[in-house]
Amino acid sequence: MHAYRSHTCADLTKDQVGDTVRLAGWVHRIRDHGGVLFIDLRDHYGITQVIADADSPAFAALEKVRSEWCIRIDGNVLARDASLVNPNLPTGEIEVFVRELEVLGSADELPLIVFGDQEYPEETRLKYRYLDLRREAMQSSMTLRSDVVAFIRKQMWAKDFREYQTPIITASSPEGARDFLVPSRQQPGKFYALPQAPQQFKQLIMVSGFDKYFQIAPCFRDEDPRADRSPTDFYQLDMEMSFVEQQDVFDTVAPVIAGVFEEFGGGKSVDDPATWPQIPYAEAALKYGTDKPDLRNPIEMQVVSEHFAGSGFAIFAKLLEQDGTEIRAIPAPGGGSRKFCDRMNAFAQKEGLPGMGYIFWRSRQTPNSTADEINGWLDTKRVDRDRLNELLAQENSAEVAEGLTKVCKIADLIEKGDPLDLRIAADQRRIHFPQMGEPEPAGPLAKNIGPERTEAIRQQLGLGVGDAAFFLGGKPASFQRVAGKARDVLGTELNLTDENRFAFAWIVDFPIYEKDEETGKIDFEHNPFSMPQGGMEALQGDPLKVLGYQYDLACNGYELVSGAIRNHKPEVMLKAFEIAGYGADEVKSRFGALFNAFHYGAPPHGGCAAGIDRIVMLLAGTSNIREVIMFPMNQRAEDLMMSAPSDPSSEQLMELGLRVIPQE
Amino acid sequence: MHAYRSHTCADLTKDQVGDTVRLAGWVHRIRDHGGVLFIDLRDHYGITQVIADADSPAFAALEKVRSEWCIRIDGNVLARDASLVNPNLPTGEIEVFVRELEVLGSADELPLIVFGDQEYPEETRLKYRYLDLRREAMQSSMTLRSDVVAFIRKQMWAKDFREYQTPIITASSPEGARDFLVPSRQQPGKFYALPQAPQQFKQLIMVSGFDKYFQIAPCFRDEDPRADRSPTDFYQLDMEMSFVEQQDVFDTVAPVIAGVFEEFGGGKSVDDPATWPQIPYAEAALKYGTDKPDLRNPIEMQVVSEHFAGSGFAIFAKLLEQDGTEIRAIPAPGGGSRKFCDRMNAFAQKEGLPGMGYIFWRSRQTPNSTADEINGWLDTKRVDRDRLNELLAQENSAEVAEGLTKVCKIADLIEKGDPLDLRIAADQRRIHFPQMGEPEPAGPLAKNIGPERTEAIRQQLGLGVGDAAFFLGGKPASFQRVAGKARDVLGTELNLTDENRFAFAWIVDFPIYEKDEETGKIDFEHNPFSMPQGGMEALQGDPLKVLGYQYDLACNGYELVSGAIRNHKPEVMLKAFEIAGYGADEVKSRFGALFNAFHYGAPPHGGCAAGIDRIVMLLAGTSNIREVIMFPMNQRAEDLMMSAPSDPSSEQLMELGLRVIPQE
Repeated sequence: MHAYRSHTCADLTKDQVGDTVRLAGWVHRIRDHGGVLFIDLRDHYGITQVIADADSPAFAALEKVRSEWCIRIDGNVLARDASLVNPNLPTGEIEVFVRELEVLGSADELPLIVFGDQEYPEETRLKYRYLDLRREAMQSSMTLRSDVVAFIRKQMWAKDFREYQTPIITASSPEGARDFLVPSRQQPGKFYALPQAPQQFKQLIMVSGFDKYFQIAPCFRDEDPRADRSPTDFYQLDMEMSFVEQQDVFDTVAPVIAGVFEEFGGGKSVDDPATWPQIPYAEAALKYGTDKPDLRNPIEMQVVSEHFAGSGFAIFAKLLEQDGTEIRAIPAPGGGSRKFCDRMNAFAQKEGLPGMGYIFWRSRQTPNSTADEINGWLDTKRVDRDRLNELLAQENSAEVAEGLTKVCKIADLIEKGDPLDLRIAADQRRIHFPQMGEPEPAGPLAKNIGPERTEAIRQQLGLGVGDAAFFLGGKPASFQRVAGKARDVLGTELNLTDENRFAFAWIVDFPIYEKDEETGKIDFEHNPFSMPQGGMEALQGDPLKVLGYQYDLACNGYELVSGAIRNHKPEVMLKAFEIAGYGADEVKSRFGALFNAFHYGAPPHGGCAAGIDRIVMLLAGTSNIREVIMFPMNQRAEDLMMSAPSDPSSEQLMELGLRVIPQE
Repeated sequence: MHAYRSHTCADLTKDQVGDTVRLAGWVHRIRDHGGVLFIDLRDHYGITQVIADADSPAFAALEKVRSEWCIRIDGNVLARDASLVNPNLPTGEIEVFVRELEVLGSADELPLIVFGDQEYPEETRLKYRYLDLRREAMQSSMTLRSDVVAFIRKQMWAKDFREYQTPIITASSPEGARDFLVPSRQQPGKFYALPQAPQQFKQLIMVSGFDKYFQIAPCFRDEDPRADRSPTDFYQLDMEMSFVEQQDVFDTVAPVIAGVFEEFGGGKSVDDPATWPQIPYAEAALKYGTDKPDLRNPIEMQVVSEHFAGSGFAIFAKLLEQDGTEIRAIPAPGGGSRKFCDRMNAFAQKEGLPGMGYIFWRSRQTPNSTADEINGWLDTKRVDRDRLNELLAQENSAEVAEGLTKVCKIADLIEKGDPLDLRIAADQRRIHFPQMGEPEPAGPLAKNIGPERTEAIRQQLGLGVGDAAFFLGGKPASFQRVAGKARDVLGTELNLTDENRFAFAWIVDFPIYEKDEETGKIDFEHNPFSMPQGGMEALQGDPLKVLGYQYDLACNGYELVSGAIRNHKPEVMLKAFEIAGYGADEVKSRFGALFNAFHYGAPPHGGCAAGIDRIVMLLAGTSNIREVIMFPMNQRAEDLMMSAPSDPSSEQLMELGLRVIPQE
């Protein structure tokens, strides 16, 4: 027999009853039922119940084992009593009667219990990561991550991409973040850098004629801590193709990403890649207040400046007299109560704005509506009538009310907290919706601008009784971030955001340049390697109007993918950099390899990079990146388990020709 | 039509004759046949011949393109004249008549010609790597590397291994080489290190309960230059398993490695993994003078001390009076000429030894041998008789001679340079082999020790006429390396090494410790994490006798794989380190994570790592690692294309709290 196991802890079923088996694993739980020991023995694959009583030669030894000891047992497979069968466990029909025990690794007192869901401070979890990782949730996250990466590789191979490894110890690659440096020993005083991304290398691979490249690439950015960012290394699906346009990249990468979410999304619906909208950056900023909109949330903002210009609401009216200002409305279907609107106003203040103006619409009357009226109104709300009729046929009014809440996608048709407000006329099976009837605006803003402007706003936004709208004004840059956040909060609070969906959108037409508001200086908005739409000609005009063949993929409010068609023409590259204030010499010294390579027959090329950690976070339903990394740093970029970073030896410093400057 | 191509340059066949197509690629070769331009258009996939004459609207433009310009053409597919069909090219039956041309990227004068096999200085190749990589051989090497890595991944997945990524910016991991350090910005003065291997992490993954791990892992060692070593990062197939013994690791990894060589070995024979010998380290050292023997070479060294003890060869006789000395013989079948033996002696002197004594055996007579004598002799040489008879039936004696050279595995049965020395008696079809007959020893050594001892040596080594033996004496450490090298040279020079084979052997039973000859200090021979055979008990005895569950896989003279069953018991770990002079405090500070983890239920585990670059080098038939790396450093650890390493900015140094010490 094998030295450690004849089966894993997930293998045994009724088929092995009577067999002598050998198992190895960890003591998950021990129960002592008066002379009978029950141990859940756990390995990576599952759990098997092993038992012993005084008849077992191993009983005395087994009584000494404790949680998380690693043991090997020999025993006989027994069928469990029908009443003790555990249908939730693949091995739930059997147990193993232990005849021999070997302790493979005992355990000290545990700083962290593996069994169950007890919460521990992150410091404890990271220091004893090897125990933390034994917990069921962490085992799942790590295997999920591994399976996602494997799935991606298989998909890329199936699309005739090859994975090529690019250097890790290399030259500085200015990508917008800070480099990690590596001192050279052979040339003391000089430094290598770890790549922020293999951007230049993958472009050089295209110039080298490889046509299709991908890599699950480690990237290194010395960035300040954030919950969804690793402070040291992280992984990208990095890819690049030659002889392509933007749509070719979309057509290639979209099925891969969609495939991942279909395969590992736990049954949530995944938008068909053929239907993923392509939203220009400017439109995304306007409608969603962000370039990574959460499209599970149907709310779209609109510009409503005209209704406030010259209106009785002096703050907005005056604001609009300044250049570049506007008033934007965030419609909030179902948010029509003063309490809710005040809460949102407070949210905006917490985010640093003076507040958010609002209007909400109440019902002018509460008529005893006729069936026709109700039907008409329900139609406008896109309610599934068949399902509704089914529900109305039910006896119990509470069930009807509950069912309706599900049927009406806009759950707040029914006033919150009191589903019985759906009063059912028992004889007619008719419903009273308090939101029906003529909308009557409320809120201070409505009073200030008067009924006509208020009604025009309502019409523009397509709102009705029970709905609200919030208003933000000024230069978009000043309120857009908060507006986007408010949209997210509204989506969640009003149950508008479909939690069972992965919603995708390509964001396209990013501007190449942005202007620093303070210095007035023009700089690259994002990545200096993108091809400007319109090429050299476009660069002759207003730089702030130049759009790039540059794109992101947003999913549920996260940026999953970012990419571009590259600028492969050296003269266009020089011009593009010149506009951002970089002379030819600087381009040659900072991006010399790429710039030189473009002089030797560079093909048109483009690609993108997708954040692996981000994708796995979304799939695992966590917003903490450390839940999807095997051995993460903490937020101070320390590895508490390995004790990194640490003091170098003086020999090391000497070899590198470095001296540490004493800190105050 | 697509903006750049309707087909790749490998797609078009007779089926597309008459079609209008669009191709994009690089101008490989241009020929101007008096008014007709022939261009070989090349992309990653293949080459298509495109042509134009004055009838083409694109002719004038096409006349201007030069080698390595990247172009797009539109044209019509024409069938080639039967006489012009190129059967070596998948597109050899057609050509494309160009009607439109777009220059996608022009090229400056080329520092390196892509077409053909011209040699360039490595400096040029690395600086213009994107041109070098366009060459056919480099395209093959890079795709080979990519395909090998993909194949390995698929094999590991099929064996239920998952790939888990381990940190790259981490703590120093003393593995015997020098760490690359990364200064911390958040804690100025402290440093991270890049992992020399994910050794500790993969062991921690086992303690974390993951059972089977692998990774195509980047490793970082700041080592001094060598042709077969990258001075910065390189890749390993790193793997680890829980609840296994040494044989389990072999059974897992051997089919993966064998599979790679079968798939990508270009038809060379691959030893069946079931037959790979397991050679103890001590035996490998004795027989082959190395722990990575080339088993394609049948030569095995032997100890022949007894024949020299007290003999007339005073140097050896005196040497043997010292402790720990021995005389070793390298048999050299077919090396039996004074000229050859003198050449080998000179080789040993070049390697720093005083020389190599030798004996060789000539034929005492050259009889006109009978068929029976010949047959008997051929039997001792293991010649394939059926094949031989077939050959003897041939008319042409040169053919017979040539055939015999192949049949007789030991090719130098036939005296070099003159195959006609196989004189064939035309009537009888009988052969004269000059090496036949009674062996007569020659060489100064034979004279010194006399005929009896000489004959005893010949008998022990199983040598005969035409063979030689070389002798080295002293403490094995003093000559073993050269002996191993001499064995390699003999194998090659005497055509004993089968160049069409991948020959594998596991080297096992490595000693855990070694003694520094100068200081007398005991230190780890290799990896301090291996489990000593016999465990704690073995560590109580003579440390130099303790063997480890530690192994290498040798292939054709290279170490491809290295691994061990790990020492997972903290008390055994402490004892093992104590013997090597490390106190408990040092173990805790240098290997704290692992040492701590072993206190919380560590499973028995083991694994290995295989060098990816090394494997691809063997498959690509190169001994220069830079031929199988996309963007390698040169031997001074410089990236000539990216200009790394380079000077840091003073801001960077300030942020890191470092000062560069001016070098003299």
